[in-house]
Amino acid sequence: MAGAVRSHGCLRLLGTHLKDLLYTKHCVLFDCDGVIWNGEKAVVGAPEVVSLLKKRGKSVFFVTNNCTRPRDGYLQKFSRLGFSDVVQSDILSSAYCSAVYLRDVAKVQGKVYVIGGDGVYTELHEAGVPAVGREPEIPGATIYDCPLDSDVKAVLVGYDDKLNFLKLAKACCYLRDPDCLFLATDRDPWHPLPRGRVSPGSGSLAAALETAAGRRATVVGKPGRFMFDCIAGRFGVDPARTVMVGDRLETDILFGRTCGVDTVLTLTGVSTLEQAQGYRDSPASEEAACVPDYVVDTVADFLPALDEER
Amino acid sequence: MAGAVRSHGCLRLLGTHLKDLLYTKHCVLFDCDGVIWNGEKAVVGAPEVVSLLKKRGKSVFFVTNNCTRPRDGYLQKFSRLGFSDVVQSDILSSAYCSAVYLRDVAKVQGKVYVIGGDGVYTELHEAGVPAVGREPEIPGATIYDCPLDSDVKAVLVGYDDKLNFLKLAKACCYLRDPDCLFLATDRDPWHPLPRGRVSPGSGSLAAALETAAGRRATVVGKPGRFMFDCIAGRFGVDPARTVMVGDRLETDILFGRTCGVDTVLTLTGVSTLEQAQGYRDSPASEEAACVPDYVVDTVADFLPALDEER
Repeated sequence: MAGAVRSHGCLRLLGTHLKDLLYTKHCVLFDCDGVIWNGEKAVVGAPEVVSLLKKRGKSVFFVTNNCTRPRDGYLQKFSRLGFSDVVQSDILSSAYCSAVYLRDVAKVQGKVYVIGGDGVYTELHEAGVPAVGREPEIPGATIYDCPLDSDVKAVLVGYDDKLNFLKLAKACCYLRDPDCLFLATDRDPWHPLPRGRVSPGSGSLAAALETAAGRRATVVGKPGRFMFDCIAGRFGVDPARTVMVGDRLETDILFGRTCGVDTVLTLTGVSTLEQAQGYRDSPASEEAACVPDYVVDTVADFLPALDEER
Repeated sequence: MAGAVRSHGCLRLLGTHLKDLLYTKHCVLFDCDGVIWNGEKAVVGAPEVVSLLKKRGKSVFFVTNNCTRPRDGYLQKFSRLGFSDVVQSDILSSAYCSAVYLRDVAKVQGKVYVIGGDGVYTELHEAGVPAVGREPEIPGATIYDCPLDSDVKAVLVGYDDKLNFLKLAKACCYLRDPDCLFLATDRDPWHPLPRGRVSPGSGSLAAALETAAGRRATVVGKPGRFMFDCIAGRFGVDPARTVMVGDRLETDILFGRTCGVDTVLTLTGVSTLEQAQGYRDSPASEEAACVPDYVVDTVADFLPALDEER
């Protein structure tokens, strides 16, 4: 059966087909990086697409594994890049959802040791979850002699451009306690940067810690379904009437499939059409879940279908 | 057949049995940390065991994944801890063997970008392999703007207590070139420290880089057989007449099994008798290779068998 489904994947979404799809969906989930913007540039047409979807009465949510900013930082970025009608409750980042998870699901009783940046610390603070990990160390401190905080009851690892060996080692020490929770914001392995450069992602740092601790982290971000549950629980979203638009097959498309929603791969980011077709044509059944239902060159391809309804 | 072999694993090595084993072996390979010393303390009796083995005409080699020191640093440690008759050619570290691999096997034509410490840099230098990676960065440099060296043709990752995000990111950028070699000194996941603390090992940093680069590293150290090949190629060692003594099942014992030599687990380090028996009694066939042939409480258990021959 998997084969049968997959032979229908990677359909080019155009014209009437696109219009029909949008007609049947009440909720559109967008990834951000590589989908609606790249760095500080909006994908051409993306602000209009978001605006028109909202005007047509659709619910629009932004579901990003990027944990570097708090939601109000994203809100400023949306505004700066010309997305004029996005509100904070439209935005779900892995940092925000990690804070929600720690407060509402894990109900952590104690401090969280964080490998991460401002996005994570701010969201934890706003959720009322005490966090440690970025206090200045005594110069020359090592893992042999640095203080450890006995109130730490969870470790949260995410993208951290201030990562150093001591942070990693301290997290390992906390994780020796089997009762210490172990969370990762997401598993994104790397991120594209300008001029062909790349940066390690949260998944890279999580892998270091998982290897050293001999434990697997609970992952909050995509492709796990927690971020979808956050939306569905609060806004009553029906998976059958939802579509997920993303640029990473192993993250966004797998996420959509895991949540039972239709998926659209857009080609303005990391994954290519060839990779999507490779998954579709692969005999390995576990790769079926990374095959998008539909493919567009850019989210701007949605514009004609939305324009016609004007 | 694997089941039959395993039912005979984990034998307590005592008295006549131990004497018989040593009689049939001409070469003894020892791991260091957790086997002949712990930190700055020799395991009681270990210096005498090494000395007596040598007096009985056995070849003795030290095969360590610890890449923090160059071989002459180990030589000083051996001397300091009372091992009086160890010479530099007895010592094979993952740092030394990585340098040999890069020079003689990979024949790298260019510089090696190193995540690692003094041990690795010194061994590369002595092997005549140019290395970069610990030059001071311009203050405030990031992966967006730092210089990259176009002569880098290999990345070598090992234990590095000065690891930071920028080092990891630079290594990722170099590994974007599929022709750039990718080596890890070893896969040791973590190391025990005093007072119940732990430190991430080379394997932890390698996992971070492998995840970010989407590539697997060639691993020089145990349990791969390259370190054994270094000894066998130079000293004509016969696996059938060799025994490997180590404290880590997934590293030392697997290494011995991979090289076709008998294995002895000593209980002064990381792995426990229960873990060894767990591997022996597991139905998973791949775990058979981590079952030691023999078990001793400490290498000092060798003493009576060697004393009697005096």
